[in-house]
Amino acid sequence: MLVQKYGGSSVATLERIANVANRIKARVDTGEKIIVVVSAMGETTNKLISVAKKISDDPDPRELDMLLATGEQKSAALLSMMLLKMGVKAVSYNAFQLNILTTDNHTDARIMDMNLEKVKKELLDKDVIVVTGFQGITPEGNLTTLGRGGSDTSAVAIAAKLGTRCEIYSDVAGIYTTDPKFYSKAKKLEYITYDEMLELAAQGSRVLHSRAVEIAKKYNVEVVCLSSFSDEGGTTIVNTLPEWLEQPVVTGVAMDSNQIKITINNIPNNVDLISGIFNAVAEARINIDMISIVNDNSHTHITFTAVAGNPDRVEEVIKTVLKDEKGWKITADTNVTKVSAIGVGMRSNSGVASRFFSALQREGIRIIATTTSEIKISVLVPKEESGRALKALIDEFEL
Amino acid sequence: MLVQKYGGSSVATLERIANVANRIKARVDTGEKIIVVVSAMGETTNKLISVAKKISDDPDPRELDMLLATGEQKSAALLSMMLLKMGVKAVSYNAFQLNILTTDNHTDARIMDMNLEKVKKELLDKDVIVVTGFQGITPEGNLTTLGRGGSDTSAVAIAAKLGTRCEIYSDVAGIYTTDPKFYSKAKKLEYITYDEMLELAAQGSRVLHSRAVEIAKKYNVEVVCLSSFSDEGGTTIVNTLPEWLEQPVVTGVAMDSNQIKITINNIPNNVDLISGIFNAVAEARINIDMISIVNDNSHTHITFTAVAGNPDRVEEVIKTVLKDEKGWKITADTNVTKVSAIGVGMRSNSGVASRFFSALQREGIRIIATTTSEIKISVLVPKEESGRALKALIDEFEL
Repeated sequence: MLVQKYGGSSVATLERIANVANRIKARVDTGEKIIVVVSAMGETTNKLISVAKKISDDPDPRELDMLLATGEQKSAALLSMMLLKMGVKAVSYNAFQLNILTTDNHTDARIMDMNLEKVKKELLDKDVIVVTGFQGITPEGNLTTLGRGGSDTSAVAIAAKLGTRCEIYSDVAGIYTTDPKFYSKAKKLEYITYDEMLELAAQGSRVLHSRAVEIAKKYNVEVVCLSSFSDEGGTTIVNTLPEWLEQPVVTGVAMDSNQIKITINNIPNNVDLISGIFNAVAEARINIDMISIVNDNSHTHITFTAVAGNPDRVEEVIKTVLKDEKGWKITADTNVTKVSAIGVGMRSNSGVASRFFSALQREGIRIIATTTSEIKISVLVPKEESGRALKALIDEFEL
Repeated sequence: MLVQKYGGSSVATLERIANVANRIKARVDTGEKIIVVVSAMGETTNKLISVAKKISDDPDPRELDMLLATGEQKSAALLSMMLLKMGVKAVSYNAFQLNILTTDNHTDARIMDMNLEKVKKELLDKDVIVVTGFQGITPEGNLTTLGRGGSDTSAVAIAAKLGTRCEIYSDVAGIYTTDPKFYSKAKKLEYITYDEMLELAAQGSRVLHSRAVEIAKKYNVEVVCLSSFSDEGGTTIVNTLPEWLEQPVVTGVAMDSNQIKITINNIPNNVDLISGIFNAVAEARINIDMISIVNDNSHTHITFTAVAGNPDRVEEVIKTVLKDEKGWKITADTNVTKVSAIGVGMRSNSGVASRFFSALQREGIRIIATTTSEIKISVLVPKEESGRALKALIDEFEL
């Protein structure tokens, strides 16, 4: 028994659904039982969002989830139909039917629990259970969605619950040292650790969603990233790299242009105000990163990046917190890109930061902000310099 | 409190959804609480069926229902979103959330019960509950759909359960003596009885589904058929016509070209065989009508009409029953149309049948088969003569 997840591009057309069904059938014919998690077909989710945006810039999130959840239900039904037509004993289930319980944080809900008794029972006489990814229900029975890449999270969560391995199929056959769409000579990794994958995912690598990796790490789920368009070997995500593998200092570099930089100047020095700002931002469910705080005698200056969305919404939140203060100023900059290098080897190799910054300096890259972790260095650079920055790092670390 | 149902053409585009939302808002502003049942947008259901048919001529019915159910969920979410944007307190619910229990007869399920406690509770602080029409769930939690026109059935069933009136909105402002798309001088009826409406619906009038009328009759639900595109008065469906209303002999005529004629010749005279045929047809859930049976000394000849579908499927069923018999022959004719005249006045007026057949004879119409009920006369005619037949009846009964 195993879990497979097929992304939007893998099920974008009926022909591709037939391709996926053929792959599943080949595995079933060898005696495997498969729980298949599907995304919506191709650009369905984006199209549904744009329809909703025609109604309102800020569509009601509960109703938006009700709308979006139709995408996976459609692809699940079609894939199941296709499998049945091929003689594979299949059946599809949605979040309601499997009681995939989530928080009520609409459009970005978290899985709390699920009931897979139905799946286990169905597998007694069926070979494939097709499950809608990306969606869940609240304890009150409202439909939710799990946010970008949520189908990965659905798949890994199901694998964790069932104690099986999880294969993630997309249009790229694994994890590369950097995005092969950007840099064609990028190398594919045979193994990557959960920690490196978490950093890569958080830094904008689109192969696997970071919440899925978090769950995989927590429950030690073996995750393999593969392509549904070829038979080449993929990348296995593991807890620790196999002993025999030479550990590279830097495993990969990534670029994330889906960021905005917010700067708030001249906030009166008051710890309550500062924590008030971050509390309000968190309550508004705005994900922030790369926080820098600088004080002078009387004032505090804050810079942080947020996942690109509506800068006005961030401003609104800040304005509410600082409504009684005077003289402060907020600016938003959308022309920024985050460039990161990731590698567990950093832990045991000094001098990585020095090589990182020297490489960028040689190229004359302007660094706007920096954050580091034990296994990652990230810099914020002007959007137009990001390609050159990434290239400099690829050369420096021989990726 | 009342129930409104908006058909596919009323919510075919975002503009039309906005139009419907405006109409609902105007009513809410007068203090009404409304349960709105929606169909899928425009041709969505037909499009989804044609996608499924690309996978298989006979797609798995459970999976087909899973697919089709997405249509109403989409329109319900969009309408609710639109209402919220306009400041109307609205929320959408699907069949799962209201536990609309049906039989497990996929693609043609019957409503058994529903739980509207959630609706009643929501109406304490909301003004509009948008409900997906056409769909239900089995007690095991599989999604079902109610067949053609099923949203009407959903709406009337909800009105029956809540004890409210039900307004059915389509692109025609009521019930006409005949289809105004076919005959532009058709007259609109101010009232029609449940019985007449049942006959009209069964005879191919598309304004209101017959199962919806059956429920309305059983629970005495006041149903009004209106247009979502104009403010003109509609047709009220009642138990008995108001006393003051002059009762016309014939209320309406209708045409149904969605029929095939099946003839089975030379079946050995054997009652078990004959009932076996009709049992098998019923078990295969093929709706039949206009049954004629003729005997000679040794053989029986049967003709009946079936709702157009796959004639091969009917043949298959018959072949299974008659597999041990020899010399019999089955033929299917799809080039037929049923033309009917309906009116409660027939009960108290003799000579209607005579006027009916004389009118057709004058036009030289070839009558292939006939059935009558207390308030209806139907004939099967060649497709190409059906328009002339209808016109002859319109003239004869001054419709």
